[in-house]
Amino acid sequence: MSRLFEEFRQYLTKMQQYDHVTNLLYWDMRTKAPKLGQAAHIEALTHFSAESFALSTSGELGEMLDKLAEPGEYDALDDTWKFIVGRMKRDFDRNRRIPADVYEAFVRAQAESGTAWEEAKRSSDFSIYAPHLKKMIDMRREITGYTDPGKELYDAMLDEFEEGMDSATIDRLFQDLKQELIPLVQKIAAKNQPEDPRFHVYSDPDAQKKVQWMLLDYIGFRRDAGAVDETEHPFTTSFSSKDVRVTNHYYEHDPLSAIFSAIHEGGHGIFDQNVNPDYDKTVAGSCNYMGIHESQSRFYENILGRNKNFWLPIYDRLGELLPQFREISLDDFYREINHVKNSYIRIEADELTYCFHIILRYEMEQAIFRGQVPVEELPALWNQKMKEYLQITPENDSQGILQDVHWSDASFGYFPSYLLGSIYDGMFLDTIEQELGSVDELLAAGKISEITKWLNEKIHRYGNTRKPKEVIQAVCGREVSAEPLIRHFKKKYGELYGLMD
Amino acid sequence: MSRLFEEFRQYLTKMQQYDHVTNLLYWDMRTKAPKLGQAAHIEALTHFSAESFALSTSGELGEMLDKLAEPGEYDALDDTWKFIVGRMKRDFDRNRRIPADVYEAFVRAQAESGTAWEEAKRSSDFSIYAPHLKKMIDMRREITGYTDPGKELYDAMLDEFEEGMDSATIDRLFQDLKQELIPLVQKIAAKNQPEDPRFHVYSDPDAQKKVQWMLLDYIGFRRDAGAVDETEHPFTTSFSSKDVRVTNHYYEHDPLSAIFSAIHEGGHGIFDQNVNPDYDKTVAGSCNYMGIHESQSRFYENILGRNKNFWLPIYDRLGELLPQFREISLDDFYREINHVKNSYIRIEADELTYCFHIILRYEMEQAIFRGQVPVEELPALWNQKMKEYLQITPENDSQGILQDVHWSDASFGYFPSYLLGSIYDGMFLDTIEQELGSVDELLAAGKISEITKWLNEKIHRYGNTRKPKEVIQAVCGREVSAEPLIRHFKKKYGELYGLMD
Repeated sequence: MSRLFEEFRQYLTKMQQYDHVTNLLYWDMRTKAPKLGQAAHIEALTHFSAESFALSTSGELGEMLDKLAEPGEYDALDDTWKFIVGRMKRDFDRNRRIPADVYEAFVRAQAESGTAWEEAKRSSDFSIYAPHLKKMIDMRREITGYTDPGKELYDAMLDEFEEGMDSATIDRLFQDLKQELIPLVQKIAAKNQPEDPRFHVYSDPDAQKKVQWMLLDYIGFRRDAGAVDETEHPFTTSFSSKDVRVTNHYYEHDPLSAIFSAIHEGGHGIFDQNVNPDYDKTVAGSCNYMGIHESQSRFYENILGRNKNFWLPIYDRLGELLPQFREISLDDFYREINHVKNSYIRIEADELTYCFHIILRYEMEQAIFRGQVPVEELPALWNQKMKEYLQITPENDSQGILQDVHWSDASFGYFPSYLLGSIYDGMFLDTIEQELGSVDELLAAGKISEITKWLNEKIHRYGNTRKPKEVIQAVCGREVSAEPLIRHFKKKYGELYGLMD
Repeated sequence: MSRLFEEFRQYLTKMQQYDHVTNLLYWDMRTKAPKLGQAAHIEALTHFSAESFALSTSGELGEMLDKLAEPGEYDALDDTWKFIVGRMKRDFDRNRRIPADVYEAFVRAQAESGTAWEEAKRSSDFSIYAPHLKKMIDMRREITGYTDPGKELYDAMLDEFEEGMDSATIDRLFQDLKQELIPLVQKIAAKNQPEDPRFHVYSDPDAQKKVQWMLLDYIGFRRDAGAVDETEHPFTTSFSSKDVRVTNHYYEHDPLSAIFSAIHEGGHGIFDQNVNPDYDKTVAGSCNYMGIHESQSRFYENILGRNKNFWLPIYDRLGELLPQFREISLDDFYREINHVKNSYIRIEADELTYCFHIILRYEMEQAIFRGQVPVEELPALWNQKMKEYLQITPENDSQGILQDVHWSDASFGYFPSYLLGSIYDGMFLDTIEQELGSVDELLAAGKISEITKWLNEKIHRYGNTRKPKEVIQAVCGREVSAEPLIRHFKKKYGELYGLMD
């Protein structure tokens, strides 16, 4: 090992400490810090983010990376370290172009924007949020101008969250979905499935927590490398493969919400726990491709969790913990967890209409960055698109444009990842069935661990080292396509709603 | 405001960020981080403790403090800032004498020693812990040699945790206690109160958590500036008066443990929440005098919480949350929470025999640092003293010398604070009764908030700015004495056990 390489590793170790504590500060703000303690956390976050940014853009790091990229040094590295050096060099070149004061102002403005968004959402008053949203749009535009000069703005943003994805590909995929799903959802709507009040009786939050652990244990989330806490909007965070944390929110009259959040975040968590531990604390570790990450949470939540056979081995256990389910047949339960209905809130939407929630946001982002639609006009545009895709109109902006956190921290380009994740899932499902046999049968036999093992080996272990299109090619042997997902939807919902020809 | 002062405040703000994250790392390690995630936290702790130490001993800080201590600058400061500058100057002068590498090695060794202690305690194997304990003794000796040259070693350690206290004073106080309590406990032992199995039926930990919040709300712990979490060994931590966190441990067959831990830690928490907010994030803030701090947790736990009248207004609520208490009369409950019996574990001991647990540890520490008793002989010495004071012999070292965490991080001189806290409490009780009237009557009338308010105004708000002997003098108008506590014990336990002449 060269002396240069040793110095580089020490530098990485130091850098990692800053990421570690900023991650911890975020986690704690959202799970534990009391209301009056938030401000001090934001101060600390701002401080350590700036320190971290300084370390990641220092001349010292730049020199080391330049030297490590020279043939003599580079050829001596193993594949993992080749990836790390290459990725860090690219990020360094992009980030060093952002002026430090711009970055620090951005971090602070993100935090302030988050607070304004929360207040705006609570009071359903878009005007509180509008100036912050405008600032986020402008700052994101400015920063992307530094990091990706010459690149089309919105494509650069998409690339940030799902590298190698571009709007041409996404347009094609989403177009295919729209064409097939709009008539499917219309046929289902005609069936008019009634509401079932049995799913909204009081459910003790403590019992819901026990259900969550039962589900996490069942799908294979490891306790010795994992933790659970409560939050307003569920998320997963990972310090390394050895410390992965999921969160949940327990509604007293909607236990299905926490149940499917548990499986969803558990899917993210299983991914992070099973990345090759050699990648821990480097850019090779926890996967930064949001579509790929989301494909795993959604695979557990939708492909597995909303399959009737998933519940066969554990439905009695659910009834032991939440007694109302003892009175509900598994068939009724299965219908309810796949109840298709047009609704306002993305994160509460069923698997099918969810697609339209994403397509709407994708088109909104294009309107912002390509159409130059001014911030004041966005709520009306939102409502117009809701009407177009879901035939409903939000009663207020909390139910509409204010519902999601993502734009409040300038994560423009993130939303499409969710739907890309589902599209990938259709392809993974096909491939698993080819390689392991019927998923229905595996689930019914309580052999979910075989599926988890397959996902671990084919996807999770690679962490960040394979880009999305590479993952799809390596795992499925073909290009990304929405056809398997559409086929899956047509079969599943055709059976559920008696739509078969 | 002078430019120097402005620079000094900015420097403090920066320093504070490091304390903030090390505090958060400690909190998270003990409440949430999974087993496999501990090592990364220790790494981060070591890194940021070293950075913090470097900032607190830098030449830049030393120069600022020297200049601020000059009459022209010093006289312009208000009382709070005079205290802060004086205290920081003193700490700076002490700490700068510790070589940075010695300090960093100490932080790392503390963490390793903690891990070894946990393992030794689990397997009841003192030999695992012995080399670490020896290292802690040696390192503490070395560091105290730097910080307090020329001062008697053990007195310097006592001073660290309870400034202005020395072993001459403590000897006198503990001697008075021994003289009166040994015969008192012997008389009680002769009464031979039987065990009551009704206090050891299954208690749902979730219900115990609800009891904890009921108690915290009742005694005045503020939710908007507070949080609760679960841990192995309960503790309280404070980021500022705006973010104070208590922990608890819920034993399924011993709900009284969590109930009194809740009140105890709640007492610490109320103290920290009510320090003058102007002192936040400075050395004037959260009180570092452990005897004074402990006096508040023990006042709530023992003087208030083990008084029958404390429970009068809320005993029905306890029964609603933990049904077994509906079947137990308040009189029986009162007897049980004051059940005096000789036992092995300090933190489970009753209020009376607790005194002997501390006296034993105080004498052990003197044996270590004054008697030079070697580490290998400490378990036998411990057991010998248990026999002497409590007439029982631990079956193994987990029940004996391995039970407490304190020595594992070199907190020698800490233990006496607990008993000093109780001694102060006797004096505070006297003074409150003189100023507010009967505590029994206040509690019976549900007016505990009047007592909390008195403690807030007389003690809590001053935070760190008054030393222990100054607090006692200011609040009670006399020197510290064990007489009020002894009188309180004799009255209370005399009535409880029918010992009145």
